[in-house]
Amino acid sequence: MATNRLASCIFCKIIKGEIPSFKLVETELSYSFLDIGPLSKGHALVIPKYHAAKLHELPDEYLADAMPIAKRIALAQGAENYNVLQNNGRTAHQEVDHVHFHVIPKPSKDEGLIIDWPAKPMAKEELQNIYEEMKGKL
Amino acid sequence: MATNRLASCIFCKIIKGEIPSFKLVETELSYSFLDIGPLSKGHALVIPKYHAAKLHELPDEYLADAMPIAKRIALAQGAENYNVLQNNGRTAHQEVDHVHFHVIPKPSKDEGLIIDWPAKPMAKEELQNIYEEMKGKL
Repeated sequence: MATNRLASCIFCKIIKGEIPSFKLVETELSYSFLDIGPLSKGHALVIPKYHAAKLHELPDEYLADAMPIAKRIALAQGAENYNVLQNNGRTAHQEVDHVHFHVIPKPSKDEGLIIDWPAKPMAKEELQNIYEEMKGKL
Repeated sequence: MATNRLASCIFCKIIKGEIPSFKLVETELSYSFLDIGPLSKGHALVIPKYHAAKLHELPDEYLADAMPIAKRIALAQGAENYNVLQNNGRTAHQEVDHVHFHVIPKPSKDEGLIIDWPAKPMAKEELQNIYEEMKGKL
């Protein structure tokens, strides 16, 4: 197994068993457990066994392993409505600098993740410009 | 390629090319494109080429394919801060009933995804009960 751990990282410590957790699914590449400050009943985290702060820093095999685990967790939660969320950076609400995917049941409007969606229509020309810029970097 | 498409689904039509889109990355199993009602510049969607409304209904190979594409898009967006979000069900803010992962740059507090995080501490006994219940279903 590839290992890339950071001694001071709370999630690396959970993976190593140095901090106890309510472990759900574990694979060669990933670990998952209940969030102890949940937004709703069953709120869980899926994390790679590789220390990277942000999603774009993770090797692809760790990225590929995460969502099938999120699926198993969602099935165990049994919620009709739920959100899968992964935050990168303080401005985007990331609090622990080790990639983690939240799987959050949404039993009602006031429980679970609260989202505001300030979408705005964008002119086709502006979309086209953004598109050309991004395509050049893909 | 496995095919499971729904004639009336707008995302299935985009995959088939019946509705135009600003296509970013395409693989055998996935398709990605710019959101035309973006929350921020570069807001993109990654969708499986398999019609399923919710994440837990998708075959694992489609789930595994999505996040490496989200990574490529995040790198092309070039944002320091960003959110990856996948909503399931109306209460959880899903608007199109075909699984889609949002990759949303968060350039500032007021742009991009707005999240409220009503976490509450939970007694260890309650967490333990939820844990036992979920473990029994995994």
